[in-house]
Amino acid sequence: MTYTPVNHKIIKALTKIVGEKNIFTDQEAIYKYSKDETEDLSYFPDVVLKPKNVKDISEIMKFCNEYLIPVTPRGGGTGLSGGALPVYGGVVLALERLDKIIEIDERNLQATVEPGVITEEFMNAVAAKGLLYPVDPSSKGTCFIGGNIAHGSGGPRVVKYGTIREYVLNLEVVLPNGDIIWTGANTLKYASGYNLTQLMIGSEGTLGVVTKIVLKLIPQPVHNILLMASFISNEDACTAVSAIFRAGIIPSAVEFMERKGIEWVVEHDGINFAMDPKAKAYLMIEVDGANMDTLFADCETINEVLEHYNCIEVLLADSSAQKEELWKIRRTMAVSVKSNSVYKEEDTVVPRAELPKLIAGIKKIGEEYGFDSVCYGHAGDGNLHVNIIKGNMSDDDWNNKLKSGIKEIFELTVSLGGTISGEHGIGLVQKEYMSIKYSEINLNLMRGIKKVFDEHGILNPGKIF
Amino acid sequence: MTYTPVNHKIIKALTKIVGEKNIFTDQEAIYKYSKDETEDLSYFPDVVLKPKNVKDISEIMKFCNEYLIPVTPRGGGTGLSGGALPVYGGVVLALERLDKIIEIDERNLQATVEPGVITEEFMNAVAAKGLLYPVDPSSKGTCFIGGNIAHGSGGPRVVKYGTIREYVLNLEVVLPNGDIIWTGANTLKYASGYNLTQLMIGSEGTLGVVTKIVLKLIPQPVHNILLMASFISNEDACTAVSAIFRAGIIPSAVEFMERKGIEWVVEHDGINFAMDPKAKAYLMIEVDGANMDTLFADCETINEVLEHYNCIEVLLADSSAQKEELWKIRRTMAVSVKSNSVYKEEDTVVPRAELPKLIAGIKKIGEEYGFDSVCYGHAGDGNLHVNIIKGNMSDDDWNNKLKSGIKEIFELTVSLGGTISGEHGIGLVQKEYMSIKYSEINLNLMRGIKKVFDEHGILNPGKIF
Repeated sequence: MTYTPVNHKIIKALTKIVGEKNIFTDQEAIYKYSKDETEDLSYFPDVVLKPKNVKDISEIMKFCNEYLIPVTPRGGGTGLSGGALPVYGGVVLALERLDKIIEIDERNLQATVEPGVITEEFMNAVAAKGLLYPVDPSSKGTCFIGGNIAHGSGGPRVVKYGTIREYVLNLEVVLPNGDIIWTGANTLKYASGYNLTQLMIGSEGTLGVVTKIVLKLIPQPVHNILLMASFISNEDACTAVSAIFRAGIIPSAVEFMERKGIEWVVEHDGINFAMDPKAKAYLMIEVDGANMDTLFADCETINEVLEHYNCIEVLLADSSAQKEELWKIRRTMAVSVKSNSVYKEEDTVVPRAELPKLIAGIKKIGEEYGFDSVCYGHAGDGNLHVNIIKGNMSDDDWNNKLKSGIKEIFELTVSLGGTISGEHGIGLVQKEYMSIKYSEINLNLMRGIKKVFDEHGILNPGKIF
Repeated sequence: MTYTPVNHKIIKALTKIVGEKNIFTDQEAIYKYSKDETEDLSYFPDVVLKPKNVKDISEIMKFCNEYLIPVTPRGGGTGLSGGALPVYGGVVLALERLDKIIEIDERNLQATVEPGVITEEFMNAVAAKGLLYPVDPSSKGTCFIGGNIAHGSGGPRVVKYGTIREYVLNLEVVLPNGDIIWTGANTLKYASGYNLTQLMIGSEGTLGVVTKIVLKLIPQPVHNILLMASFISNEDACTAVSAIFRAGIIPSAVEFMERKGIEWVVEHDGINFAMDPKAKAYLMIEVDGANMDTLFADCETINEVLEHYNCIEVLLADSSAQKEELWKIRRTMAVSVKSNSVYKEEDTVVPRAELPKLIAGIKKIGEEYGFDSVCYGHAGDGNLHVNIIKGNMSDDDWNNKLKSGIKEIFELTVSLGGTISGEHGIGLVQKEYMSIKYSEINLNLMRGIKKVFDEHGILNPGKIF
C-alpha cells in the first residue's frame, strides 16, 4: 500500500476542516502523539488533528480516503499494544475534544457519551445518580471510553459484571470513507441483521472511528466487602480461584498478585502493607450486593474454600479507607513494576481453572530463558498480565532470545484453551503472535472484513494483522 | 445468482457423504422441512440431509460450494421469521443428529455442546450439577442451541442474565466453502482481533454452520419469588416496568401480558386463573438470589413502586407449583394465540421506558387499519411481541392493507429508538422492513461481510437482506 505523503497542500486542506487552532505539526505535538503506554515504541505522525465533532471527522476521513493518507485514531494514549501509534506516519486523529457526556437517561438506565470522555469521570457522573457503569480498567483515571470500545476493555469487575461488550448498546461511527452510521439500536436486545456494534467493539480502531456511544447502566450495588488473602504459593492462590466459583459465589472481583509486585508497590508508593514472610501470592476478592448479611455469609463461604488451598490469612476490609488502600495496591502495580525495571508485558488469558498450570509454566519458561517475571491480574476471568523483567539478562538475550520465550508463553496459553490477549489487544506488538492462535483462514476472514470497511486500508494501518 | 438444480448425480455424491439412511427425498421429509413456526410460509427443499458430525458437514459444504447448490441449515424448526426455509430449494441441512452434550466442565463452569442439543435438555443437565444456563426462550422444550446461536436468542431472563451473546465463549464453525474454524477461545475475555464469535451469533445461519458451542455457566441462584401484578391499563403496566429498575431492583424476569392473551390461554389450556374484571394487563415479575430475606425486601420495594401505577393487586408465588402455573400462562401464550385465530406476529423492541408509547401507538394503528392485536413479551428489555389478529378483517385487507400497518408499527418502533426485531430475527419475513431501520450503507456493510464468508452465496440464501 502506497500512501500519499503529507505535503503543504494537504495541511492546507485539513486546516480548512478543523481550523488553524486544531492542527499541529510542531515538534512537541508530533513527539507527544508518537507514543502511548507501550514500552519502547514510538512512531511519528506527520500531523496531529483535533476535530471537534462527527462532522469534522467525517470530512477528514472523506478527504484522507480520497487522497490515500493514513489516519490513526487516538484516545487517552494509555494503550499497551501500540494501537494508537501511526506506523505509517500521516494523520493522528486525536479525539480528546469529543469529551461530552451527552445524556444520562435515568428513565431507561442508558447514557450517551462522546469517545473522549475519561472513563472514571463517566463512572463518577453516573454514580452521583446512584447508577453503576462497572467497566473500570486500571487506567480509568486517564483512558477514554472510545479507547475502551476499541479494545473491548474489561477491568477487575468483569468477573461479575462482564466486559464493555455487555454495556454498549449502540455506536455512531464514521467509516473510513467518511460515511456516518449508527451500528445498532438503543435497546437491550437486537436481532436485526449482523451485529455491527459487536464487530466494532474490539476492532482496535481499524474499522471505523467511533463518535458516540450509547451505554447501558445498572443500579449501584449498595454494599461491598473486600478480602485480601495470602497464600504460600502462586499455584495455591490460582487453584483457589475456580474453587470460589464452584462454591456458588460470583465475586465482583478476584485479583491475583505476586509478592514481588506488592513489594514494588510498597517501595514505589510508600503504601503501608505488611506481608507475612511465608506469603508468596495474594488474592483480592470483592463481593457486592444489597444485603450485608448475605455478603458476610459469602465471605464465610469464601474463607472455608480458601482454607483448602494453603491460605495463610484473610484480611477483611469493610471501611472505605481500608478498601481504597488495598485497591490502590492492585491499581498501581502496573506503574510500580514499570518504573522498577526494564520490562515487557504480555497479556494472557485462559479458562480460569488453568491458571495454576499457566503460572507454573510461565515461571518454568522464565527459568529456561533466564528471565524473571511479575504476574498479576484478573484471576476471576483467567486473565494474567505477565511482566517479564530484564533484571540481569544481557542486552543481547533481551533483544533476541526473549522473543522465543514469549512465543512459548503464548503457545502454552493457547494449548490451555486460552488466547494471546484478554484485554490489551493485538495492536502492533502482538501481530507476530497471531498465528499461534489463528489459522490463515481466520486471519483471511478478518482481512476480508477489514477490506469491506476500509477499501483503501487507510484507517489505523499496520495493526492486528 | 443461478444455482445448480439438484439432479441424480448430485444426490449420488451427497449419499456418499452422509450415507443412504441420512438422505431424504421422499414427500414426507420434503414437506416436514418446508416449514418452521412462521405463519403461512413454506418452501420445499430438493433434498434433506442429516449429517452426523463436523466432517460430514464440511464435505457437504465443500461439495455444494463447488457445484453452487444452495444449503439451508435447520435446527429445531421453531423459528418465527422463516430463517430455516429453503427459499431456493436445494439442500436442507438438518442438524438434529449433532445432539450431544460433549462436556460439562465443572472446574471452569463451561460446557461444550453440539448445535442439535435441545435447550431445555441442556438447562436440565447443568441444573442437575447445581449450575445455571439462563438463556431460556419460550420454545426451549423443542428449540436447538444452534438455532439460539443463529438468532442471538433471549427469553425472559435476559433482563438480569443477558442474551446468549453473554454465554457463548467459542464456536466451531464450518464455513460455506467447507473450511472449519474455531472463532475464538474458551475464555471469558478476548481481545485478539475481530470478534468472529460475536459476529457469528445472530447471523441467522448465513455466514457458517455452527458445529460446536462452548458456553459459560453460572452458579444457580438458590431462591426465587414470582409476583403477578394486575393493572387497569396497558400503559400503566408498561410505565411501571422502568420504574422497577429505577428503584434499584434488577428482577430476573419482567413479563408483560395483555388480558386477552391470558383469556385465550385459560380457554386453550384450561388453566385455572381468575382475573379481576378491571384488570387489562399483567406484569409477571421474578426476583432471584441467595437470600430469601433480601428477596422479600425486593418484593416490598416492587409493591411500593407498583402502587403508583394503578396496580389492582399483586399475587406472590413462592411454591414451585404456583410458579409453574404462572409461568405456564406466559410460556403457552404464543401457542394459544396462534391456535385462536389467523394472525401475524411482529417482534418489536424499544428502550424500556418507551413501552407505554409503543403499545399505545400499536393500538392506535390497529384502530386506523381495523385490526386487533394481542401483545405480550419481555417488558424488562423493552421487547414486545405483537400478534396482529385477523378477526373480522376482510381477506383483501388482511393480504394488502395490513402490510402498511405493520410498516407503521416498525416506523414507530424505530422512531422510539428501537429496532424491528429483538429476538425472532429478520429471516425471510422481515427483510422488506430492513430499510426502515438501516441505511443502504449499513446494508452494504452486511452484504460485504456476507461475501467475505460466502463468496458464491450458497449458504441460506434469500435471508436478512
